[in-house]
Amino acid sequence: MSRLVKKRSKKIGLAPGTLVHLGTPRPGSTAVELIEYGADHLEQRKLDSLLQCSLPKPAPSVTWINVEGVSQVEVLQHFGECFKIHPLVLEDILATDQRPKAEDYGEYLYVVLKMLRLNEASGQLQAEQMSIVLGENFLISFQEGLEGDVFEPVRLRLKNDKGRLRQTGPDYLLHALLDLIVDNYFLILEKIAERMETLEDELIANPDEGTVQAIYQMKREMLFLHKAVWPLREVVGRLQRRESPLILEENIIYLRDLYDHTVQVVDTMETLRDMLSGMLDIYLTSVSNRLNQVMKVLTIIATIFMPLSFIVGLYGMNFKHMPELEWRYGYPAVLIFMAVVVAGMLYYFRKKRWF
Amino acid sequence: MSRLVKKRSKKIGLAPGTLVHLGTPRPGSTAVELIEYGADHLEQRKLDSLLQCSLPKPAPSVTWINVEGVSQVEVLQHFGECFKIHPLVLEDILATDQRPKAEDYGEYLYVVLKMLRLNEASGQLQAEQMSIVLGENFLISFQEGLEGDVFEPVRLRLKNDKGRLRQTGPDYLLHALLDLIVDNYFLILEKIAERMETLEDELIANPDEGTVQAIYQMKREMLFLHKAVWPLREVVGRLQRRESPLILEENIIYLRDLYDHTVQVVDTMETLRDMLSGMLDIYLTSVSNRLNQVMKVLTIIATIFMPLSFIVGLYGMNFKHMPELEWRYGYPAVLIFMAVVVAGMLYYFRKKRWF
Amino acid sequence: MSRLVKKRSKKIGLAPGTLVHLGTPRPGSTAVELIEYGADHLEQRKLDSLLQCSLPKPAPSVTWINVEGVSQVEVLQHFGECFKIHPLVLEDILATDQRPKAEDYGEYLYVVLKMLRLNEASGQLQAEQMSIVLGENFLISFQEGLEGDVFEPVRLRLKNDKGRLRQTGPDYLLHALLDLIVDNYFLILEKIAERMETLEDELIANPDEGTVQAIYQMKREMLFLHKAVWPLREVVGRLQRRESPLILEENIIYLRDLYDHTVQVVDTMETLRDMLSGMLDIYLTSVSNRLNQVMKVLTIIATIFMPLSFIVGLYGMNFKHMPELEWRYGYPAVLIFMAVVVAGMLYYFRKKRWF
Amino acid sequence: MSRLVKKRSKKIGLAPGTLVHLGTPRPGSTAVELIEYGADHLEQRKLDSLLQCSLPKPAPSVTWINVEGVSQVEVLQHFGECFKIHPLVLEDILATDQRPKAEDYGEYLYVVLKMLRLNEASGQLQAEQMSIVLGENFLISFQEGLEGDVFEPVRLRLKNDKGRLRQTGPDYLLHALLDLIVDNYFLILEKIAERMETLEDELIANPDEGTVQAIYQMKREMLFLHKAVWPLREVVGRLQRRESPLILEENIIYLRDLYDHTVQVVDTMETLRDMLSGMLDIYLTSVSNRLNQVMKVLTIIATIFMPLSFIVGLYGMNFKHMPELEWRYGYPAVLIFMAVVVAGMLYYFRKKRWF
Amino acid sequence: MSRLVKKRSKKIGLAPGTLVHLGTPRPGSTAVELIEYGADHLEQRKLDSLLQCSLPKPAPSVTWINVEGVSQVEVLQHFGECFKIHPLVLEDILATDQRPKAEDYGEYLYVVLKMLRLNEASGQLQAEQMSIVLGENFLISFQEGLEGDVFEPVRLRLKNDKGRLRQTGPDYLLHALLDLIVDNYFLILEKIAERMETLEDELIANPDEGTVQAIYQMKREMLFLHKAVWPLREVVGRLQRRESPLILEENIIYLRDLYDHTVQVVDTMETLRDMLSGMLDIYLTSVSNRLNQVMKVLTIIATIFMPLSFIVGLYGMNFKHMPELEWRYGYPAVLIFMAVVVAGMLYYFRKKRWF
Ligand SMILES: [Mg+2]
Ligand SMILES: [Mg+2]
Ligand SMILES: [Mg+2]
Ligand SMILES: [Mg+2]
Ligand SMILES: [Mg+2]
Ligand SMILES: [Mg+2]
Ligand SMILES: [Mg+2]
Ligand SMILES: [Mg+2]
Ligand SMILES: [Mg+2]
Ligand SMILES: [Mg+2]
Ligand SMILES: [Mg+2]
Ligand SMILES: [Mg+2]
Ligand SMILES: [Mg+2]
Ligand SMILES: [Mg+2]
Ligand SMILES: [Mg+2]
Ligand SMILES: [Mg+2]
Ligand SMILES: [Mg+2]
Ligand SMILES: [Mg+2]
Ligand SMILES: [Mg+2]
Ligand SMILES: [Mg+2]
Ligand SMILES: [Mg+2]
Ligand SMILES: [Mg+2]
Ligand SMILES: [Mg+2]
Ligand SMILES: [Mg+2]
Ligand SMILES: [Mg+2]
Ligand SMILES: [Mg+2]
Ligand SMILES: [Mg+2]
Ligand SMILES: [Mg+2]
Ligand SMILES: [Mg+2]
Ligand SMILES: [Mg+2]
Ligand SMILES: [Mg+2]
Repeated sequence: MSRLVKKRSKKIGLAPGTLVHLGTPRPGSTAVELIEYGADHLEQRKLDSLLQCSLPKPAPSVTWINVEGVSQVEVLQHFGECFKIHPLVLEDILATDQRPKAEDYGEYLYVVLKMLRLNEASGQLQAEQMSIVLGENFLISFQEGLEGDVFEPVRLRLKNDKGRLRQTGPDYLLHALLDLIVDNYFLILEKIAERMETLEDELIANPDEGTVQAIYQMKREMLFLHKAVWPLREVVGRLQRRESPLILEENIIYLRDLYDHTVQVVDTMETLRDMLSGMLDIYLTSVSNRLNQVMKVLTIIATIFMPLSFIVGLYGMNFKHMPELEWRYGYPAVLIFMAVVVAGMLYYFRKKRWF
Repeated sequence: MSRLVKKRSKKIGLAPGTLVHLGTPRPGSTAVELIEYGADHLEQRKLDSLLQCSLPKPAPSVTWINVEGVSQVEVLQHFGECFKIHPLVLEDILATDQRPKAEDYGEYLYVVLKMLRLNEASGQLQAEQMSIVLGENFLISFQEGLEGDVFEPVRLRLKNDKGRLRQTGPDYLLHALLDLIVDNYFLILEKIAERMETLEDELIANPDEGTVQAIYQMKREMLFLHKAVWPLREVVGRLQRRESPLILEENIIYLRDLYDHTVQVVDTMETLRDMLSGMLDIYLTSVSNRLNQVMKVLTIIATIFMPLSFIVGLYGMNFKHMPELEWRYGYPAVLIFMAVVVAGMLYYFRKKRWF
Repeated sequence: MSRLVKKRSKKIGLAPGTLVHLGTPRPGSTAVELIEYGADHLEQRKLDSLLQCSLPKPAPSVTWINVEGVSQVEVLQHFGECFKIHPLVLEDILATDQRPKAEDYGEYLYVVLKMLRLNEASGQLQAEQMSIVLGENFLISFQEGLEGDVFEPVRLRLKNDKGRLRQTGPDYLLHALLDLIVDNYFLILEKIAERMETLEDELIANPDEGTVQAIYQMKREMLFLHKAVWPLREVVGRLQRRESPLILEENIIYLRDLYDHTVQVVDTMETLRDMLSGMLDIYLTSVSNRLNQVMKVLTIIATIFMPLSFIVGLYGMNFKHMPELEWRYGYPAVLIFMAVVVAGMLYYFRKKRWF
Repeated sequence: MSRLVKKRSKKIGLAPGTLVHLGTPRPGSTAVELIEYGADHLEQRKLDSLLQCSLPKPAPSVTWINVEGVSQVEVLQHFGECFKIHPLVLEDILATDQRPKAEDYGEYLYVVLKMLRLNEASGQLQAEQMSIVLGENFLISFQEGLEGDVFEPVRLRLKNDKGRLRQTGPDYLLHALLDLIVDNYFLILEKIAERMETLEDELIANPDEGTVQAIYQMKREMLFLHKAVWPLREVVGRLQRRESPLILEENIIYLRDLYDHTVQVVDTMETLRDMLSGMLDIYLTSVSNRLNQVMKVLTIIATIFMPLSFIVGLYGMNFKHMPELEWRYGYPAVLIFMAVVVAGMLYYFRKKRWF
Repeated sequence: MSRLVKKRSKKIGLAPGTLVHLGTPRPGSTAVELIEYGADHLEQRKLDSLLQCSLPKPAPSVTWINVEGVSQVEVLQHFGECFKIHPLVLEDILATDQRPKAEDYGEYLYVVLKMLRLNEASGQLQAEQMSIVLGENFLISFQEGLEGDVFEPVRLRLKNDKGRLRQTGPDYLLHALLDLIVDNYFLILEKIAERMETLEDELIANPDEGTVQAIYQMKREMLFLHKAVWPLREVVGRLQRRESPLILEENIIYLRDLYDHTVQVVDTMETLRDMLSGMLDIYLTSVSNRLNQVMKVLTIIATIFMPLSFIVGLYGMNFKHMPELEWRYGYPAVLIFMAVVVAGMLYYFRKKRWF
């Protein structure tokens, strides 16, 4: 997972709209992919990132341009000029710690959010910022630059099936992309829930300091998720209230469905957070309990052996005149007396339910 | 109780409206039951789940179709085509981890919520998702598929009494069904409250680690209930504000009554949660207290016997010249001295109220 | 105090408006008292609870019917028919765990809340549900059935003074009754505050496990009060915003005064809750402190006597060749050495401020 | 500071508007002071509290009547009749535990709040209820009856400077009085902040049980302040939104300034509360740490001397055949062996960073 | 960092608009800098602070006057008269503990907030109050008086580049200044996040009481930041909603961008606060764990050596008749027996996973 706070300070004092990439540049150079489609045609090709500017085909044809990698500032500048995107938007695309938001610029809509994935090899959570510019007949998606994305199923649906996705405008494509991103949040939450359950079992069976570390680690991950997901709810909420005419009336129903999923993600996340904080309480309780256990063992041992040691010490004294020492059965008498003391102690502890 | 997070991830990348069953398929195949009634007639029969499509009789006749089990996707498809239900609704019916909500689709109203029951044999909490589609002259209820439901009293009232239920539209039937579901929430809360009181007594009489486990377990159950009940309040609130014309003016009063019950459920739930968190505090306090008790016993024992052991050790030394050892009454003198020491200690602890 | 959760489950499946009494029936049968008054007349008599139905005199005469005990369902039915009260209202009157609310039924206003009293003998908190039906020229109050009520001062004012109470409508009578109920909340809160202060002193002087139990007990009582008072604020708030024409313009000012009192009750209650939670913190702190104290005593004793015991043990060894044992002043030398060790220890502990 | 809950119960059952003084009557009888002023005249005199009723001079002259002490009910009644103040207002003036509020009675505005002062001698916090009735050409301030007030600066400004205060209406005088009261809240908060810093130093240098008591005491004071200040924010907020025509348009700007101060008081108070709760956490942590320290000392001592005592005990046994006892250098060998054991222990503890 | 509560009390009783400097006067006298610019001209000069009043050039020329140091009351008075600034505004400029706010005075807009910087030498956080008066063709910034500011980049942009900043009105200059201040908040948060991560590592590797002190210190700093940043969000929010006509329509987009940054600052701050409170939990857990560890060592030692000491004490008794003492192999038998006891103990502890 990326750091919770990024180095925004290197932008101090720059004019708004100055393009500066924020965060570590992801490996690999910018790749641009273009898919142009309509009800009866589809064309997919790779673009040279700095090709001359050619406007997308008019509606009802839809052009989807997917840009992978934003660390090359000149590519962004090129897109800005070509599609008349405001420098403030370009700046936000480059600032990879953007809070999810949707902004209406009249000619186009700007949406930014986090795309989360699980690295299949290491099982680690990876976040990539996704910026989407939605125009009347085009959609441009800018990915922060982590290789690959979660959009493969949309590409397949575009190619294979000629349903709604091929027949309506780019706003439905926007829905499809957002839906995939949100679906992947469910996957992340499932994985976290699984780890949480493992942790829970560990907590009950054999908790140690590693367990606390793990709880704390998950708390941090939940904080990161919270930052990514909480504002998204508002973003999708605004889209489904159709605050921009770029969203068609007929597609609202799908955005409402998406909103429903987003709310469910937030809800699940809150439930997991509640469970986490409950787990720390349980841990603390169990530590206290074990301390009690240890102290009882110590007290039982001390309470039994201290009096015994006193007694044997007593008859280890070197006084000249100690009549008991001379008795024929002094030794066995002392042994029996000590056995009685021990029995009394054990009875007392048993009555107090100490073991 | 079912898992807090379900495997939604298997739906990743599917087009909206693609029908995929979520969760473990409940045993038994789909059963469809039809009740057609009006002020002066009532017909009840079992349907073949894939019979050809016949539209329900026109109003004022009311048709209630109750579908038990949603894991057979083709049955859902059949209903969708026959009653012109939107694929997004069908998709939600199949997704058995849906957050309670009400959606207005113009021609019909879609309501989804959780039906909770106590298994009479095991005493365990069982949740079944309930989806209801309310049309002008029909109501279809889709149950997740757990055998049986809580609707028996409504069936009886339909058969036996010719009151309001037989004389008004399907919106009143909707009220009757929701009312039963909410009534069962009260039952669940009563059972939880009873267990909580048992736990409370245990907490005071004889708390152990099992008690904490039980508190934690109840916290999880309350989280589950919270997820099910909290959004329901909003759902019923919207119904009673009559946001859809499918709800008749004259039945609003009954939905207001239902809303009142829902608020009471939420209120009771919050009270129980507050009590639960108070119980953990009490437990922690009592653990601390018992630790204190144990430590006092240890300290008393050590404080009494350590000085005594020192004294007897002293006269166990083998120095050649130790005048006390030669005294005629050295031994009894030491015994008396030690008795005095013990008495002093006991007086000190008594004064400090240690026992 | 009554249980926090009542057995609502026995109403499962009944049609709305079915009359079922909830809770333990209070002893004694239903008693009905009628007071009919105007600016210049007042008549007070006991009614047979099932007398034939006679409508109250027209305005400006006001009829107050006070019903004590709701466990006899037929009495309620009688009133329902006679005054045309909706079955849903009758049902709520019988359900004695109702959340405080106000509902406008056009012809009449229905208000339900909790009347709290301190039993003068046992000093215990007693709750009785109070339902009020306010019509244009009448007011009916239904008490759950605990003997007596808090309305005696209103009866006296009706009889003795011919002021506003005798000259305006039943809405002013409603105000007078609610005002008395709220005034009694202040009394309850005062008693609780007094007990809290006693507890506070105990907490500082001599806390034990009983103190925690008492704090927990008070927490539960506050939860109960919270449930009774919090929604009342909304109820009175709605009345004073005059959402029903049954409230006269000129009496609004009195309801505003009542609202002010209700807010003050809520405020005081929240303050008491804050104090309670602070008390538990103090208790935990003091337990920790005493543990520290105990452990210091133990450590001081052990640190002083363990080295001494070692030394005397050393010279208790039976080696043939131990020159010190032969010395003339070996014994006093060891005694002096041990005194030095003790002094050093004490100096160390004093420096560490352990005593 | 006065008690958190006052005896309101003695008002139970009285008709609204019945005048009953609440709280302990402050010493000294009622004193009435009158200041009549305009742009070019000012007259100040003491009034007999029950003088016959003479209406204030018409605007633009302003009459300020300051009443010190409200325990004499007949004085209040006199004012009520003379200035046509509603009995409900008079009742609130007498009820000295009123929650801060502003009420519009058309002809006049009623404002009630708490005036806080530090007793210069004892340094204690003193609260006095302040009720203000603002008419078109007059302002009456009723003080609960603690000797003196915080208004001296306003009296001076009235006498000495002929600025805005002398030239506009009584609403500006209201602002001046409220402003002074709020300014004194800052003084109180400063004192509390100072004490808090002292406490903080004590907490770090040398915390004991007295520190906790002090923290708890401050928590209670903050609760009292919270009750006094929090609703005031709403009161001044309403004044500056000019909900009454008695507030002149041109003076709104000053009330906005006052509102700003009130918000700052609330903010500062919340900051202090946050700091207080942080301090308790620090204290608990430090208690735990010291317990750890004590236990380490105990464990080190026990771990070193228990094995040593065992060894010397071993050679204190009286077996006939113990070859070591006969050895020439048995005693020094044992001494050396024990030194090695001690060194090993110390090395172990040092490695574990126990000291 | 400055104190959390400043001495506002010295203003008690002064008329509103009386100019009193609050806080310690910063070293150095007032310095006034004037920058007059338009699309094609720019003039920058230092002003004598009490020069005669000359109104700024008319629009489209923009005049920026930057005042460093507000402790000289006469300078403020001069500006007040010259630019017709309301005394209440001047008073707020002098009160250096102002809560961030924006106030519309018709002719001009008043904005006040905190400018935070890191002292490059000491690495300490420094706060300086910044007041801005925005007119139609001028902007005056009043700095509390700490040497320097964060505006250098704006001065450079004004001189070097002839873009938007030179071509639009003073509202865009306002944006540029606020943007710089907010950008510096990011810098502060980054530094705090870095220190927090260091602290986190320390917490896991080697926590001690200094760690708690550091956490507490950071909590206080976060409280200070919270006070400075939280209200700023509302301030910028109001600006971007364009509540004043002094903000041009075309510049709204930039203020929206600024608002976005402010929200991000608040968000980051809340995340850091959550992390801080998690850290204290971890610390407490780790203290408990170490106590457990220490107690286990003690218990193991005591449990092993107390029985052994008893045994050797037993055979140190001086009874005449103790047959074992005479046995040939009594001594080795006892040694072997003790070895068995030790082995048993160790096995028991190992099974209990104590080490
Ligand atoms: Mg910038
Ligand atoms: Mg931006
Ligand atoms: Mg990518
Ligand atoms: Mg989805
Ligand atoms: Mg929720
Ligand atoms: Mg806790
Ligand atoms: Mg999908
Ligand atoms: Mg859906
Ligand atoms: Mg079923
Ligand atoms: Mg019901
Ligand atoms: Mg919640
Ligand atoms: Mg509640
Ligand atoms: Mg029912
Ligand atoms: Mg009801
Ligand atoms: Mg009664
Ligand atoms: Mg009252
Ligand atoms: Mg409050
Ligand atoms: Mg609450
Ligand atoms: Mg705590
Ligand atoms: Mg009253
Ligand atoms: Mg009142
Ligand atoms: Mg006074
Ligand atoms: Mg002020
Ligand atoms: Mg705040
Ligand atoms: Mg708070
Ligand atoms: Mg002032
Ligand atoms: Mg001000
Ligand atoms: Mg400066
Ligand atoms: Mg910025
Ligand atoms: Mg948030
Ligand atoms: Mg906050």
